[in-house]
Amino acid sequence: MNNGAQALIQTLVGAGVDTCFTNPGTSEIHVVAALDSVPKMRAILTLFEGVATGAADGYARMADAPAATLLHLGPGLGNGLANLHNARRARVPVVNIIGDHATYHTRYDTPLQSDIETVARNVSAWVRTSRRTEELARDAVEAIAAATGPPGQVATLIVPADVSWQDGAEPAAPPPPGVSPAVSSETIEAVAKAMQRSRRTGILLGGRALREPGLRAAARIAAVTGTKLFAERNVARLERGAGLPAVERLAYWPELVSKQLDGLEHLILAGAAAPHSSFAYEGKDSALVSTGCEVHELSPPASDVLGSLEDLVEALDAANAEPILQTAFVPSRPEGPLTAEKVCKAVGATLPEGAIISDEAITSALALPSSTAGCPRHDWLTLTGGAIGQGLPVAVGAAIACPDRPVIALEADGSALYTIQSLWTMAREQLDVTVVIFNNRSYAILNAEFARIGVQEAGPRARAQLELGNPDVDFVELGTGLGISSRRVDSAEHLTGALEQAIADPGPHLIEAVIPAV
Amino acid sequence: MNNGAQALIQTLVGAGVDTCFTNPGTSEIHVVAALDSVPKMRAILTLFEGVATGAADGYARMADAPAATLLHLGPGLGNGLANLHNARRARVPVVNIIGDHATYHTRYDTPLQSDIETVARNVSAWVRTSRRTEELARDAVEAIAAATGPPGQVATLIVPADVSWQDGAEPAAPPPPGVSPAVSSETIEAVAKAMQRSRRTGILLGGRALREPGLRAAARIAAVTGTKLFAERNVARLERGAGLPAVERLAYWPELVSKQLDGLEHLILAGAAAPHSSFAYEGKDSALVSTGCEVHELSPPASDVLGSLEDLVEALDAANAEPILQTAFVPSRPEGPLTAEKVCKAVGATLPEGAIISDEAITSALALPSSTAGCPRHDWLTLTGGAIGQGLPVAVGAAIACPDRPVIALEADGSALYTIQSLWTMAREQLDVTVVIFNNRSYAILNAEFARIGVQEAGPRARAQLELGNPDVDFVELGTGLGISSRRVDSAEHLTGALEQAIADPGPHLIEAVIPAV
Repeated sequence: MNNGAQALIQTLVGAGVDTCFTNPGTSEIHVVAALDSVPKMRAILTLFEGVATGAADGYARMADAPAATLLHLGPGLGNGLANLHNARRARVPVVNIIGDHATYHTRYDTPLQSDIETVARNVSAWVRTSRRTEELARDAVEAIAAATGPPGQVATLIVPADVSWQDGAEPAAPPPPGVSPAVSSETIEAVAKAMQRSRRTGILLGGRALREPGLRAAARIAAVTGTKLFAERNVARLERGAGLPAVERLAYWPELVSKQLDGLEHLILAGAAAPHSSFAYEGKDSALVSTGCEVHELSPPASDVLGSLEDLVEALDAANAEPILQTAFVPSRPEGPLTAEKVCKAVGATLPEGAIISDEAITSALALPSSTAGCPRHDWLTLTGGAIGQGLPVAVGAAIACPDRPVIALEADGSALYTIQSLWTMAREQLDVTVVIFNNRSYAILNAEFARIGVQEAGPRARAQLELGNPDVDFVELGTGLGISSRRVDSAEHLTGALEQAIADPGPHLIEAVIPAV
Repeated sequence: MNNGAQALIQTLVGAGVDTCFTNPGTSEIHVVAALDSVPKMRAILTLFEGVATGAADGYARMADAPAATLLHLGPGLGNGLANLHNARRARVPVVNIIGDHATYHTRYDTPLQSDIETVARNVSAWVRTSRRTEELARDAVEAIAAATGPPGQVATLIVPADVSWQDGAEPAAPPPPGVSPAVSSETIEAVAKAMQRSRRTGILLGGRALREPGLRAAARIAAVTGTKLFAERNVARLERGAGLPAVERLAYWPELVSKQLDGLEHLILAGAAAPHSSFAYEGKDSALVSTGCEVHELSPPASDVLGSLEDLVEALDAANAEPILQTAFVPSRPEGPLTAEKVCKAVGATLPEGAIISDEAITSALALPSSTAGCPRHDWLTLTGGAIGQGLPVAVGAAIACPDRPVIALEADGSALYTIQSLWTMAREQLDVTVVIFNNRSYAILNAEFARIGVQEAGPRARAQLELGNPDVDFVELGTGLGISSRRVDSAEHLTGALEQAIADPGPHLIEAVIPAV
């Protein structure tokens, strides 16, 4: 006979959800107690909920399966909300288990009581409060189905304490796998005709289209049509490097995106949304596709995006076309005083085969794509929802999902400080993550945005809001304090050496790269 | 001619809201730019939104006036949600300014887009998205009125970027001050009669009743009726120490509360809710007042609580009664290896006149009330909403509100790590805060809760969820890395010396007190 908590964990494990990123409290104590009765569930403690939710995102990107989170009532969910927002934008599956007060206790409005469902709706495609122990396993199955139903969504199951602790529950069978609906042959034909009519076309690839099979299909199409291949700006996971077809990722700044798309007569969307400026700017259009360019939605993100590209290969008779592949090219080792660009080159010069890059270095990483394009094959994970503080947690989750692959987390100083607690979980789980902090002691992105709004000379009080100096943050102290071997470098030679050492030595390392302010 | 952002800040300052805790992004850049045109607004940068919202809470507790926050869209509000939950439970005024995308930009569903109002409702008594620049100042006045309308609430004003940047706004006049409705004479009479009928009565004081005038009125009532004086568990601010009437704060554990209230025939609520167990426990009642005790609501939190106590003094003819006051008593300096109890004694032995204690040391601080009861007069701020990670931010806000008073933040290791970024703002603003970390390397409260659910021997996998060792967190490194003078002590003598030095030297200090695990 199981209590609710045991049946819940058994059901999750039975459906393949065997990893849980946790920050539990009293209302989740029965779920914690049940861990020892279901050893197949791996529970990974975090010091802060944003680490748990971002790790679940990173795990799902690499495992193509959901992890669970275990969080403490409304405030715990609130602390995890920003990275669930990013997970929603990454279109990955996540199953949140949020503890709540016992059903009969909520009427007393005790301190931790709040409307959890309301908060959950901000990020979740599916929200339910389980009301009876007998129904908890069934509710969990529906949560998993919602999370994995295409393309990938955040599902939030709220579990009152008495629903966890009462006996009388049985685990439930896993849901059938989610099926992505196929794209109609009419749509395929229409897109094929447009690509045959004009040589000035581009395909904007997103989601599953950015894995090897999608990239190869797109590259075959390019070989026969001359179409340009783009990746959406906010890529959850891009497979790239020597031997794979290369794609050009859309830029952040709207002027640059307009240039990238300049002259196109047709833009085909495969698993991606039409490009828009991330933010609005006074007097500028937020839409970035020129009026002379027709946009065709080949396959929305929830559809069978890979299938749509393969069907398009057939329609264009490109099955035997030879795709252009990225040639191998490793940048030379940089020398002299560090700059952001040299950090990117050093990463390229040392990147090991099979690496996973979690990229949240923001403005500092502009040279990263060119510095790593021809490196040994790797995966590239980026900030999907614009809520900074996602890179370190995503690195945690990726390392848990792929224990045999080295993870490199490239972090801006400002972003790193939102979820710096990630370092402790890296140390505790001895994850093979090398964290590189690009420390320019400012919110450089905001300085750039400030210049854009036409303020030539920011006043001292405004400027103080954009600067991270005074005091300078010492990331070596922070890393050491959270249990990670940490060092600071200020020359390109030292950085390259430090990267090589960190990569050769399994387990977590932090390297603080001090670079000039922008 | 002002743009919306300028008029917004002018309106806030005109209403006395001249302090803003910030973590801005691109959608708030015009508000940042406007700071230099309204020098009376003090903007205090934080590295994480939970620091900003907790600081606004601490500021309001000490200033009896709202601070503003400036946060970045839905994810920024999400990161600040847990401490807004605590602020809501503290019944303090807070005015959140949340930037949003330009009104015409939201249709594109770009990465940072989300339903901000939905998240805000979890914690806010008042939520509005300002739609026109001309109406922004008026909306700000309504937000301030909602925040300050009794007793104190969280108001959230969402400001789209174009509403900020467009010209044509004028600042608006401040709202009239909020008025707490008086308690009816019938209610006063009924309570007075109950207290005259029985000597077995208690008054549970909350909110404004815990300041000196309320305490003195309650103590006069006690002098003539023999009633017991209790403070609610989750006190936002309690004035205490030598020369003030002493009150007994309700305990955390329900059995202890039942003992505290044992034998009462009448419990009078003055600004407090009836006591309930924080969490439900299997087979136990959540209500803690025995069935033989009649509960009388003298004054709900939003009413004129102080006036109700003064009216009760009149009704009981107690105006000339001599209240019993706390005698001065400072504990002797502790000696030998540190324990949690000795840390509390060392705090009592060194507490300076006029100190503000932010107490989030949880299980470690059980000896704190007795160790400090007879100390020089001080204020005591506690965790109001149960969402840990509030103590350090509250200390930031209290120090900003009261720059001439020393602030002592007593923090559990687990709690401190949620919002450790607070230390940087303490350093940047050179706040006079002494942070004492009770480092027992575990979530001791969860170990205790675990024992309560009847699991005699937690399995290794459950136990791992409750322990913060492996690796041990080094708070001296964390404090130093974030710019604060930091040291570790493991003897009572060293701690007392360190406290005296820190208190004598204005500016922030961190002391890590390593104590045995529970």
